[in-house]
Amino acid sequence: MARSMLNRRERRLASAGSVRQMPFGGVTNRYPPIAIMSTDEIEAIHRASLRLLSETGIEILHDESRTLLKAAGADIDMSNLRVRFDPAMVEEKIRTVPSSFTLQARNPARNLTVGDGSLIFAATGGPAFVHDTDRGRRAGNYADMCDYIRVVQQLNVIHQEGGCPCEPTDLPPDSRHLDFYLAAIRLTDKNWQCWALGGYRVEDAIEMLCITLGQTREELRANPAALTVVNSNSPLRLDIPMGEGLCAMARAGQPVALTPFTLSGAMSPVTIAGALTQQNAEALALMTLSQVVAPGAPVLYGGFTSNVDMRTGSPAFGTPEYAKAQIASGQLARRYNVPFRSSNVTASNLVDVQAAYESGMSLWSTIMGGVSLIEHAAGWLEGGLTASFEKLILDAEMLQMMRSFLDPILVDEDSLAVDAISEVGPGGHFFGTGHTLARFENAFYEPMLSDWRNFENWSESGGRSGTDRANAIWKDLLRTYEQPPLDAGVDEALEAYVARRKEEIHAGKF
Amino acid sequence: MARSMLNRRERRLASAGSVRQMPFGGVTNRYPPIAIMSTDEIEAIHRASLRLLSETGIEILHDESRTLLKAAGADIDMSNLRVRFDPAMVEEKIRTVPSSFTLQARNPARNLTVGDGSLIFAATGGPAFVHDTDRGRRAGNYADMCDYIRVVQQLNVIHQEGGCPCEPTDLPPDSRHLDFYLAAIRLTDKNWQCWALGGYRVEDAIEMLCITLGQTREELRANPAALTVVNSNSPLRLDIPMGEGLCAMARAGQPVALTPFTLSGAMSPVTIAGALTQQNAEALALMTLSQVVAPGAPVLYGGFTSNVDMRTGSPAFGTPEYAKAQIASGQLARRYNVPFRSSNVTASNLVDVQAAYESGMSLWSTIMGGVSLIEHAAGWLEGGLTASFEKLILDAEMLQMMRSFLDPILVDEDSLAVDAISEVGPGGHFFGTGHTLARFENAFYEPMLSDWRNFENWSESGGRSGTDRANAIWKDLLRTYEQPPLDAGVDEALEAYVARRKEEIHAGKF
Repeated sequence: MARSMLNRRERRLASAGSVRQMPFGGVTNRYPPIAIMSTDEIEAIHRASLRLLSETGIEILHDESRTLLKAAGADIDMSNLRVRFDPAMVEEKIRTVPSSFTLQARNPARNLTVGDGSLIFAATGGPAFVHDTDRGRRAGNYADMCDYIRVVQQLNVIHQEGGCPCEPTDLPPDSRHLDFYLAAIRLTDKNWQCWALGGYRVEDAIEMLCITLGQTREELRANPAALTVVNSNSPLRLDIPMGEGLCAMARAGQPVALTPFTLSGAMSPVTIAGALTQQNAEALALMTLSQVVAPGAPVLYGGFTSNVDMRTGSPAFGTPEYAKAQIASGQLARRYNVPFRSSNVTASNLVDVQAAYESGMSLWSTIMGGVSLIEHAAGWLEGGLTASFEKLILDAEMLQMMRSFLDPILVDEDSLAVDAISEVGPGGHFFGTGHTLARFENAFYEPMLSDWRNFENWSESGGRSGTDRANAIWKDLLRTYEQPPLDAGVDEALEAYVARRKEEIHAGKF
Repeated sequence: MARSMLNRRERRLASAGSVRQMPFGGVTNRYPPIAIMSTDEIEAIHRASLRLLSETGIEILHDESRTLLKAAGADIDMSNLRVRFDPAMVEEKIRTVPSSFTLQARNPARNLTVGDGSLIFAATGGPAFVHDTDRGRRAGNYADMCDYIRVVQQLNVIHQEGGCPCEPTDLPPDSRHLDFYLAAIRLTDKNWQCWALGGYRVEDAIEMLCITLGQTREELRANPAALTVVNSNSPLRLDIPMGEGLCAMARAGQPVALTPFTLSGAMSPVTIAGALTQQNAEALALMTLSQVVAPGAPVLYGGFTSNVDMRTGSPAFGTPEYAKAQIASGQLARRYNVPFRSSNVTASNLVDVQAAYESGMSLWSTIMGGVSLIEHAAGWLEGGLTASFEKLILDAEMLQMMRSFLDPILVDEDSLAVDAISEVGPGGHFFGTGHTLARFENAFYEPMLSDWRNFENWSESGGRSGTDRANAIWKDLLRTYEQPPLDAGVDEALEAYVARRKEEIHAGKF
C-alpha cells in the first residue's frame, strides 16, 4: 500500500515536467515582528535623528528638491547647499505617507500589495557583473540580462523583477534603460522595478508602463506600477540624479524605496545605534521631500545598515550587525507606519556555504523583523557586484522554505490525529494508514534544490553539490521558458517609443 | 590615520596566532521566544497527548520502569507491556521537574547553566561515520573520534562535547564507551555527554566523573556533571536499554534530554500537529517516569519532530516543517516549565549550500523558539549519520554569528553618535574619526570562516570556497591543540578504572 502510494506520487511529479516549485502567490507574515530595541530606545533614535536634521541638516545637490523644501519651510544654507529641517515640519509632513499600497503588473494575477503584512520577494537589481559556474564572472551584458529575466519569470516564488539583474554594459549608457525596460516588459509578466538615476529614466518608465497597461498617467498615479530605489549618498547627501528620480517618481505617484546606504564604520558611525540614527535621519529627510513633492506619495522606509571589516575596509553583509540593524529598522519603519524595505545580502564571492549562511541571516532577520519588500531577495552575490545564476536558484529555494515556514500549523481534531496514532500503536509505522494516505500529497514542503536522498543513492547519481544542482536547475528553467504573450499592438508601440527616445537621447535630448 | 589604525589591528590579530575566534562564554537569549501556536492550540496538543497516554498508553519493555510506574498508579497491561497513564497522575508527577539546573565541567570555568534563558551549544554526538574533504567518508574510528574531540575543545563557541562525535567502530562494542569517556575526560576540559544505552554505561560515566572531579555520588547528585539523551522508540515505545539508562540517570540525579524521534509521515502522523501530539505524549510519559524514579530529577523536553520525503521515505531535516515543529516544541516545553532541547540538523550529504541553509533554518527556529540546549549544534551531516570536520567549522561560524546576534545593540548618548555624524558631515567618511578610533577594535563581529575580501584579492589568494577554508581551519586548530592538564593521580585512577571494567565486561560482567 505504501509502495503504490509512492509510485502514484512519483508518476504525478514526473509528468509535471522538470523543476518542481511552488505556484506564484502572495505571502503573508502572521508572526508579530520581533523587536531588538525597547520603545524608549527607538524614540531615542528618532529624537537623535531629528536633532541631526535640524542642527546639521542634509546636503541636497538637486536644485528643485531644495527649492521645494524651502517653500515648505526648511532652512537652506546656499553656501554649502545644506538643508535643515525643523522637527515639527518633519513630523507633520511624513503623516501623509500611506501605510500600504498596491502595485500593478501587466498580468493582473501578479499585482502586488506593499505593506499590510504582505511580503514581496524581488530579484536582485543593479549588479555590474554576472556569473555562472560554467562561464565564470563577466561584465554585465544584454544577453545575460535577458536570460536572467527569463529565469526570474520562471521562478514562481519571486514576485518582482528587481530593477535589472546586470547592467547591459554592451549598450550605450544613456539609453540602455530603454533596452532593459523593453526586455522586462516583454520577458516577464511580473512587476519590474525601474531606474531612479535621473528624471528622464523615470519618465521613460512611466510612459512605457502607460503603453503596456493601456492607462493614462492619472490612472497610473491612482494605481502605481513602477517602483524604484533612491539611495542617499551617505553621509547626509542627496545627489542630483537621485533627487531628480525621487521628485519624478513622487510627482507621478509611483512608490520609492528610500534607502540610505549606511555602512557602519565607513559612511556612518562605528556604533550600530549611530549608523541607525544616521540612516533614520536620511530616510526622514527623503520621506519629507517625497511628501513635499506630492502629499500621499507612496514610499518605503529602506534599511541597509551593515558594517565594514575594520581590518580591510571591505563591506560585510549578512553579518550579526546587519541582522540586528534590520530588526531595528523594521521597528523604526513601524514607528512611522511606513512599509519596510530590506535586502537579502552576502559578501561571498561564490555560491558557497558563506553565501548560504549570510543570506540565511538576512532572510530570517528581515522577515522576522517585519519586512514588506525584500530587494535582492534572489541572486545577489559579492556584495551586490554580481548577479549569479546559481545564487538565484539557491535563494529561490530559501525563499520557498521561508514562505512555507510562514504557513501556520493546522490544529484541529483531524490533524491532532489521536485516533491515527492509536490505530498504528507502539512500534508501527504511518506510511500506509488512511490518515496518511488522505493527506500525504501536500503534507510537506517539496524542495526544488535540496537533495534528501541517502548517501548511497546520492553518490550513485553523481554526488553533486547544491551549487552544481542549482546550475542544472536554472539551465532547465531557461530551456523550458516561454515568453508570456503581449498584445502585438502594445509591443509595436513600445518598440516605436524606444526607437524614438533613443534617437532623442543620442541627439542630446533627455 | 585610518591606515595606521588598520595596521595596529592587523598586528594584534596576527600575533594572536592562527584562527581568530570568540572567547568561551555563556550565551543568554534576551528575545522573548516566538510562538507559532495560540495558547488554545498548545492546550489542545496537551489534552490530545494526555488522552493518548490514558487510552492507548506506551509500550514499556523495561521491567523496572513498568514496576515503578505501576507502584505510582499507572495501569499496566502485561499482555502487551502497555502502560496507561491517568492524566491527573502525569500532571502531578511532572510538577517536580526543575526549571533549570547547572552542569559541572572538569574546568569550573566551563560549568554550564541549563534553562533560565541560557543557551548551550553541544557538538554532534552519535554518528556512525566521519568525513573530511581530504579523506572522504569512512567508518567512525578511535583516532578520528579523538581528533574530533580535540577540535571541539579548541572551538570556544562550543560549550559541550555532544556524546561521542563518531562511534569508534574499531573498538569492541561493549566496552568502547569506556574508551570514549576516558578520551573525553582527557582531551577536553568541557562538559561531555555520556551514553544512555544500558544502565552500566551510565554507571561507568558516573563513576568516572566522580574520580575526575574528586566527588562522591552524593555530591554529583547535588551538582550534576553527566547529561545524556534518551529517545523513545517512536511510536509509543520505550525499549530496555533506554529504560535502563533513564532510570540510572534519574536515580543518580543526572539530567536527561527526553527526546521522542517523531518523523512525521513515518513514525508519527503526516500532520505536524499529530506528530507534535505524539512527541508530547512520549515526552510526558518519559518525564513522568523520571520523576517516579526520583522526584526532582533534572530533565529536558526534547523536540525532534521533522518529516520524511513522501516520495522516497528519506528523513528530511532543517525543513520548514522542522522549523515550525521546533518553535511549537519550545512552547510545549515552556507550558511544562522545563528546559527545551532541540538540534541543528541537515540531510545534506556534503558541506554545501544545502548543509548551510538547512542548519540556518534549524538554528534560527530553535534559538528564536527559546531553546536551552542545542544538540548537534556543530558537525552533524547526512541526517546525523556522519560527523564532518568541515561542518564543525561551518556550524561554529554560524553559532558565533548567532551568539553575536543575541548581544543587544547598545543605545546611549555616545553610541547614538550625533556629534560624530555632525563632525564628519555630508560626503565625509568615519574611518579616522575619534569616535571610530575609540571603538573600532571590538565594534563588529569578526568571522572565523567568512571571507569578506573583494573578488580580486580573494581570487589572487586562491579563490577558495567556504568549505575549503573550513578544511584549513580545523587542521590548523588540530595542529595547535594542547591537551588541557589533568592531575596525574586522577588520570591514573581513571586508567585503572577503565582497565578493570574492560576486564569485567569482556568476562560478561556488565
